[in-house]
Amino acid sequence: MTSFALTSDVVNYLIYRYLQEAGFTHSAFTFASESLVTRTNIDPNNVPPGSLVTFIQKGLQYLEIEANLDGQDGEVDGDYKLLTPEELLANDVD
Amino acid sequence: MTSFALTSDVVNYLIYRYLQEAGFTHSAFTFASESLVTRTNIDPNNVPPGSLVTFIQKGLQYLEIEANLDGQDGEVDGDYKLLTPEELLANDVD
Amino acid sequence: MTSFALTSDVVNYLIYRYLQEAGFTHSAFTFASESLVTRTNIDPNNVPPGSLVTFIQKGLQYLEIEANLDGQDGEVDGDYKLLTPEELLANDVD
Amino acid sequence: MTSFALTSDVVNYLIYRYLQEAGFTHSAFTFASESLVTRTNIDPNNVPPGSLVTFIQKGLQYLEIEANLDGQDGEVDGDYKLLTPEELLANDVD
Repeated sequence: MTSFALTSDVVNYLIYRYLQEAGFTHSAFTFASESLVTRTNIDPNNVPPGSLVTFIQKGLQYLEIEANLDGQDGEVDGDYKLLTPEELLANDVD
Repeated sequence: MTSFALTSDVVNYLIYRYLQEAGFTHSAFTFASESLVTRTNIDPNNVPPGSLVTFIQKGLQYLEIEANLDGQDGEVDGDYKLLTPEELLANDVD
Repeated sequence: MTSFALTSDVVNYLIYRYLQEAGFTHSAFTFASESLVTRTNIDPNNVPPGSLVTFIQKGLQYLEIEANLDGQDGEVDGDYKLLTPEELLANDVD
Repeated sequence: MTSFALTSDVVNYLIYRYLQEAGFTHSAFTFASESLVTRTNIDPNNVPPGSLVTFIQKGLQYLEIEANLDGQDGEVDGDYKLLTPEELLANDVD
């Protein structure tokens, strides 16, 4: 599957929203100033609360599935292993 | 599939590393001060560069697959549709 | 003597320059963003390095002289007393 | 008159208080983190509100008096001249 052309604008906007929602007001202010993220034309109403965390969580699930897939035939191994985020982080995530 | 217990420590650390790697030095400083993220016991060597972006990208792929799965039988629809990040953002991503 | 109409623009600019000169790069960045001080029409070349510290130092000297002036006749007391910045800070400095 | 040994701790604390009082909350946070000014043993109750501005104002008055003193005999010139902060800033303020 081809990778999305995930722009830095989208990444920055997701981070900005996270900082705001999580109460990191000073970081949100500084990041807005440094990244100019608020000048992007992303519609705030189109990004539900918690989006960044959801994406990371789905990404971890995806990587876990990949890590459990059998190399030859693409099937999930018999002994499915639930990996911790730390273990998935430690893998080379490309 | 059950969701990971993705801790805020992990999320914050991924963001912190992104800010550093992308050259947002002021934001990285303020975020470190505000989140105290550097006091976590995550080993920096275990987190490869670009991890946050990779997770978001994988998360978007995962959501795209989900969005294309047929509701009844779990199979991928005939007309597979490549969604843009903006479209996926606009969906309710739970 | 009447007080100067010391504008907040001048105060902010002196602080901004101090932050830069003293190596507080993150604070200088955030303060520039928050105060919009760089949009003032003060010519940077007209403000020598160390201006803020010089003004504070002169202000402390002025207050020390005032504190040592005899109330009745405006003359300096016989027993001139050198006050510390902390002592002057502790006085009501109006 | 000898200069005070005005420590950077005192300067930083005066700035920190100014940032707080003037409503620059993000700058105050970042400056506190970067300068560690809150770890000084200056008693907040000993520093009245507006201290920094008062010191700068007094410093400007002091410099204005100096600028108007006759070079030879230390007396104030006949034509006393009220200088603006900008003019005093432009002088070499040592």
